Amino acid sequence: MIISQTLEYALRAVVFIGSGNGTPFTTLQISQATKVPQAYLAKVLQSLVKEKIIQSQRGLGGGFILAKEPAKIKILDIVTAVDPIERIVTCPLKLKSHGSNLCRLHQQLDDAIALIESTFNTSTIADLINKPTTVKPLCDFPNQKIVS
Amino acid sequence: MIISQTLEYALRAVVFIGSGNGTPFTTLQISQATKVPQAYLAKVLQSLVKEKIIQSQRGLGGGFILAKEPAKIKILDIVTAVDPIERIVTCPLKLKSHGSNLCRLHQQLDDAIALIESTFNTSTIADLINKPTTVKPLCDFPNQKIVS
Repeated sequence: MIISQTLEYALRAVVFIGSGNGTPFTTLQISQATKVPQAYLAKVLQSLVKEKIIQSQRGLGGGFILAKEPAKIKILDIVTAVDPIERIVTCPLKLKSHGSNLCRLHQQLDDAIALIESTFNTSTIADLINKPTTVKPLCDFPNQKIVS
Repeated sequence: MIISQTLEYALRAVVFIGSGNGTPFTTLQISQATKVPQAYLAKVLQSLVKEKIIQSQRGLGGGFILAKEPAKIKILDIVTAVDPIERIVTCPLKLKSHGSNLCRLHQQLDDAIALIESTFNTSTIADLINKPTTVKPLCDFPNQKIVS
């Protein structure tokens, strides 16, 4: 599985929270909108708070909001928060003769990983929620209209 | 983990078997060269036999050989045999309103998966073992010389 379950869930949560334009959402609300089980979601949200992608507002009407503008949150930031990309930097077989050089097999695998990393580095949450499209992420979001 | 442990092990095994130019290798020999635990390796080899990437020769001096030329085995074939790439074809949230259209979030994820798929579709085992390089895949392979 190239896109892990955890990453898929984290992306759903951030996209949903970002769609509120500053309205805080509770874990229950996010869970219902994103169809992510609450306990699993709570762990994912915790990782996102730790990496300062979202923040929680306490008190009545509290909940989670984005910690910065959607345009400043890269998909790669979310990947790094919940399921970091592991580049191949040394021989996984720990062959001394390979030293710091990768053989063609591991160079090719690392190139593929680098490709994914660069894709995720060049797109932001704003790209996912702001551009008009016929199909909005997740379900009916607040403050968003379907462009048909 | 973008490259699963199983895929990494399968690639090591096929690259090693392919390096023998038709010499059969036993599970023990492959395990020692690729540093893959024997029980895990046996399962991986079984999947590769099933997908006709390798074949086993019985009897004295028997073992595993490639079922076709290295140039005819794509990395994608091995991926498909042991850890198939799952493209996102319908909304993972099963939203009826999305129907067969992917939202921007899932389209972007699927694009990233497609990128990996196409990389693996355009390179073969021959690319990994035949071209001269300073660092050969895995350790000291039979019939291969280090080009320095």
